[in-house]
Amino acid sequence: MPVLDLTSSSVALTRAICDIPSVSDDETTLADAIEDAVRAYDHLEVVRDGDTIVARTALGRDRRVVIAGHIDTVPINRNLPVRDMEQDGEGFLWGRGTVDMKAGVAVQLKLAAELSDPSVDVTWMWYDHEEVDSALNGLGRLSRNRPDLFAGDFAILGEPSDGQVEGGCNGTLRAIVRTDGVRAHSARSWIGENAIHKAAPILARLAEYRAREIEVEGLLYREGLNAVSISGGVAGNVIPDACEVEVNYRFAPSRDAAAAERVVRDVFTGFDVEIVDVAEGARPGLDAPLAQDFVAAVGATPRPKYGWTDVARFSAMGIPAVNYGPGDPHLAHHDEERVPVAQIDAVEAGLRAWLSGS
Amino acid sequence: MPVLDLTSSSVALTRAICDIPSVSDDETTLADAIEDAVRAYDHLEVVRDGDTIVARTALGRDRRVVIAGHIDTVPINRNLPVRDMEQDGEGFLWGRGTVDMKAGVAVQLKLAAELSDPSVDVTWMWYDHEEVDSALNGLGRLSRNRPDLFAGDFAILGEPSDGQVEGGCNGTLRAIVRTDGVRAHSARSWIGENAIHKAAPILARLAEYRAREIEVEGLLYREGLNAVSISGGVAGNVIPDACEVEVNYRFAPSRDAAAAERVVRDVFTGFDVEIVDVAEGARPGLDAPLAQDFVAAVGATPRPKYGWTDVARFSAMGIPAVNYGPGDPHLAHHDEERVPVAQIDAVEAGLRAWLSGS
Repeated sequence: MPVLDLTSSSVALTRAICDIPSVSDDETTLADAIEDAVRAYDHLEVVRDGDTIVARTALGRDRRVVIAGHIDTVPINRNLPVRDMEQDGEGFLWGRGTVDMKAGVAVQLKLAAELSDPSVDVTWMWYDHEEVDSALNGLGRLSRNRPDLFAGDFAILGEPSDGQVEGGCNGTLRAIVRTDGVRAHSARSWIGENAIHKAAPILARLAEYRAREIEVEGLLYREGLNAVSISGGVAGNVIPDACEVEVNYRFAPSRDAAAAERVVRDVFTGFDVEIVDVAEGARPGLDAPLAQDFVAAVGATPRPKYGWTDVARFSAMGIPAVNYGPGDPHLAHHDEERVPVAQIDAVEAGLRAWLSGS
Repeated sequence: MPVLDLTSSSVALTRAICDIPSVSDDETTLADAIEDAVRAYDHLEVVRDGDTIVARTALGRDRRVVIAGHIDTVPINRNLPVRDMEQDGEGFLWGRGTVDMKAGVAVQLKLAAELSDPSVDVTWMWYDHEEVDSALNGLGRLSRNRPDLFAGDFAILGEPSDGQVEGGCNGTLRAIVRTDGVRAHSARSWIGENAIHKAAPILARLAEYRAREIEVEGLLYREGLNAVSISGGVAGNVIPDACEVEVNYRFAPSRDAAAAERVVRDVFTGFDVEIVDVAEGARPGLDAPLAQDFVAAVGATPRPKYGWTDVARFSAMGIPAVNYGPGDPHLAHHDEERVPVAQIDAVEAGLRAWLSGS
């Protein structure tokens, strides 16, 4: 089993945990290494649930903060092991997971080990299965198996936010828009009814749709409505009787699930629309005192988070939550994923300053 | 090995050869039975090539006719063994192969055995692999291995034509029409470029396209341009960077492959179009004296054949060819495939009358 040295630098730790591949559903090796490393620290009480590791202090502080990060990545695409890279005079770690989100996890691991006497009690959570079907999400599973571990006044998720504080997140809805038709041999196509041709207005409406920008608690959220897949067809000589367009709607946290569904059904009026799943967003939550305190301490500028992240899970449990991590979120999942070394250090310094208490 | 009695009725023979399953690539048992049966007749010279059996007379007639039928079927779908069926007072044989095209083959087998002294020399061909990739087609293979066997003045293919004479056939062309875009996380869709949305005009042009009807040698051919499949999409949270629409163009036999390609490229101007394969159609060939003689003798009404059939192979070799067989072509490949018993008898009578010479 690989051994993690939590006294090494956050940058070295980022490299070490990126070089232990942990594509979703294959996190056990890394989870084992993390569990083993944190169990060495007496100030941490360690709980394991599947491949999720929880380590927490129990210092009797009057406030408790949850700080979490997922340990899985999207599939590797010839972008491991990690490489050093320089661009415009800036140093980067390049490779799968550097941005999403092992640099954030590395900072958390280092501070979990180092800060034996933080100013607030801290519940650290490193969890599995974030990059796949939400039903598999380790944080969700933990909240069902061990809701007691979620006691807290504020939560910080280490998702990449360019070293800034990103508040809340957009919601996300997936729907299938369907057409049907009548099969026939393509040599006598007029006997059938082509379901793919009937999908033309679905794509036209998507192409024409202009997504809105919506201000929520001072942050401007940008929405999006997109086809993420399309399929139809029986055989090369058959008029297809079915076509499906899978649509993803990203909606501002001011809309709830019902409002989001209305938007989608309205756009596709006249078509069969099945809502496959929906996850509401999270309002920024920056009005919470601990959040304001945190933003001031790390010296960051709050911005909206566009992508859905697990802050919404904390938000749904009534815990204000923000994203704060190194790395440009635009480079998440990118084959050229890379994190500025200076941002890893800055986030480490920001979190340390706040947790050490001023 | 099953034994075929070529002195039994065409209807009984249809049942017998349907009940010897011969899905493409599994024709050997039936081919063996056919070879064995025809070798018993001294007036026939028998040649075998793979699972294709050729039996021909050599009477020194001044005209030679090729009469052919494929012995394979599409997969069985709980529609064997053959059953008797009655509908609106009409008797049918129901089951896989009854229409496409073992009733036609049965008539040919019976007449090959019976007509030892036809008015024209006849080359009978029963071949394998018609229902699959055209590169495997037994008739095509035979034309490469034994082109000498294709000497002839006229050809009749026993494909189902409702007991009428169907002249020529439409050509068929398959093309892929592609769009591309730029991947991005669907939470920040404005960074990407959605290839599925860009396919909207492809589907709109298909939906709006009005296929032409084109008269060729007195027969009206109806064309068709259809999407037969569409695909695109990377993952539920990714803006897709590619979309492919597979298009099938069925074109009148007055167009050659180059003309058909021009039509398709013209419809999809501005898009990336890849021609995947193309098979030219066959002109009706009904102006050939033997063809006119044949149509008159069997008392049928010439009609256009819409689907591509192997008459095009004969046509390409300079041999006028028509389709003439029992069964409704709309029921080919259908799970409720069934042939009217009376049509089997009528086609047998028609062919016998013509071959016996008036």
